[in-house]
Amino acid sequence: MAGWYEETFRDSMRFSVRVHATLHRERTDFQTIEVLQTPFFGRTLVLDGLFMTSERDEYFYHEMISHPSLCMASSPKRVLVIGGGDGGTVREVLRHPEVEQVTMVEIDRRVVEVCKEHLPDIGTAWNDPRLEVRFEDGVAFVAEAPPASFDVVLLDGSDPVGPAEGLFDKTFYSNVRRVLSPSGVFGLQSESPILMEEVFRQVQHTLAEVFGSVRPYFGTVPLYGASTWSWTVAAAEPFPMDMDRLKRLEPDLRYLNVDVARGMFAVPTDLRRLLSRD
Amino acid sequence: MAGWYEETFRDSMRFSVRVHATLHRERTDFQTIEVLQTPFFGRTLVLDGLFMTSERDEYFYHEMISHPSLCMASSPKRVLVIGGGDGGTVREVLRHPEVEQVTMVEIDRRVVEVCKEHLPDIGTAWNDPRLEVRFEDGVAFVAEAPPASFDVVLLDGSDPVGPAEGLFDKTFYSNVRRVLSPSGVFGLQSESPILMEEVFRQVQHTLAEVFGSVRPYFGTVPLYGASTWSWTVAAAEPFPMDMDRLKRLEPDLRYLNVDVARGMFAVPTDLRRLLSRD
Repeated sequence: MAGWYEETFRDSMRFSVRVHATLHRERTDFQTIEVLQTPFFGRTLVLDGLFMTSERDEYFYHEMISHPSLCMASSPKRVLVIGGGDGGTVREVLRHPEVEQVTMVEIDRRVVEVCKEHLPDIGTAWNDPRLEVRFEDGVAFVAEAPPASFDVVLLDGSDPVGPAEGLFDKTFYSNVRRVLSPSGVFGLQSESPILMEEVFRQVQHTLAEVFGSVRPYFGTVPLYGASTWSWTVAAAEPFPMDMDRLKRLEPDLRYLNVDVARGMFAVPTDLRRLLSRD
Repeated sequence: MAGWYEETFRDSMRFSVRVHATLHRERTDFQTIEVLQTPFFGRTLVLDGLFMTSERDEYFYHEMISHPSLCMASSPKRVLVIGGGDGGTVREVLRHPEVEQVTMVEIDRRVVEVCKEHLPDIGTAWNDPRLEVRFEDGVAFVAEAPPASFDVVLLDGSDPVGPAEGLFDKTFYSNVRRVLSPSGVFGLQSESPILMEEVFRQVQHTLAEVFGSVRPYFGTVPLYGASTWSWTVAAAEPFPMDMDRLKRLEPDLRYLNVDVARGMFAVPTDLRRLLSRD
């Protein structure tokens, strides 16, 4: 179907992308998966009507969700990725030579299969021998995993509706903390602080009930309408990023670099005031 | 007119804002001015079909265009603002106690008059005795102004089409340099590095032909579609921001603070590569 595909925010704003063709569309047990051919973003993944990632802009999101946590954990050998069915996040994780084992837990097998077929340039690390992909519910997986079994947990989930709903509550965060090693780090996408400031605020507050250090950081995702986006790192205590690790990866990255990493934790005054509200 | 007001980028993306009513619409000698009542952004100014500013989000843009230059110039006593008819930029400039005289040169008298009527909460400094407003062509004004007659020049113009077209070329930049004092600073909005990356690149390159130091910086403007936006400071040599000045203003600001100012000059890797192209 050619035309415009649109995502509406708060019934007040709309971001539309021109589409040349729908390459794939199916309803799975969990959600509707679509792959669109678009002139600006290239092939674009849409889940339940929400833009997820695209060939053109995927590096913004995937570099930002992964490297900060990987550079903070003192020894990021064992990494758990929840969600991330397009494969972009595990691709970035596996750039780190310290990583020995990545477990990716994606609830919907069809997302991975569709992305392997239609978005092969995003998931370029599926064959890395360090990667194990499991098609399970991430909430249950974390509830049952042994204590201290991971050094980094990344939550690469969609918005807190549909299959990702259970990934935004205190029980889940508490289980994440339990499965992390003492110097482990939890990294997650935490929504647009502009379009969804209440969700952003709630995520920060709930994380702070569980983790000793919670730090949001900010960057760009052009596909996400109001392209200023947030991610958050949470840990038992504040760990600095090992900038030497990031520096070594810089030639392979397209957005994140040491300068950006030093600046991205700055919280604008309006969001400071939002977060200081009870 | 109720409905959706939309701005289309590169024939491929569209940002739409729900509108409850059109409060004002006129065609002047220079452009079409509209003021819309919108549920998310409040009252919103549109010039020639492009979203300019809104009650809700104006502080992002106005704080970002003004304070970096004001904090870099060693002695920002005399300030020239070109454009900025809504009054938000001069309001921010006049927060600096060092400023003795502000000359605002706006080509279209009607923009100021319409904004005074419909957007009084943006232009709150019209009656400051340090402010002189002139309704003239900014290009001609700068061409005729005496050398070294300003310590800061701010270009608060719209996109490089329509009345702002002459504000993006080397002749204009050379005249700005001429009218600046030796330690003076030129600050300008330099477009979205995502939606208009070629304009962004061209502005940086052209500025570099005229100024010894050219530094883009990045922030958010929700109303501008792909809300990651750029501004640029240009000067004879790199001047550091006086963070003490900014710190003193922090209680009055809503977006910019010292942390944000330290981080905002970081250039993402994709833009570094874009700028390093000839």
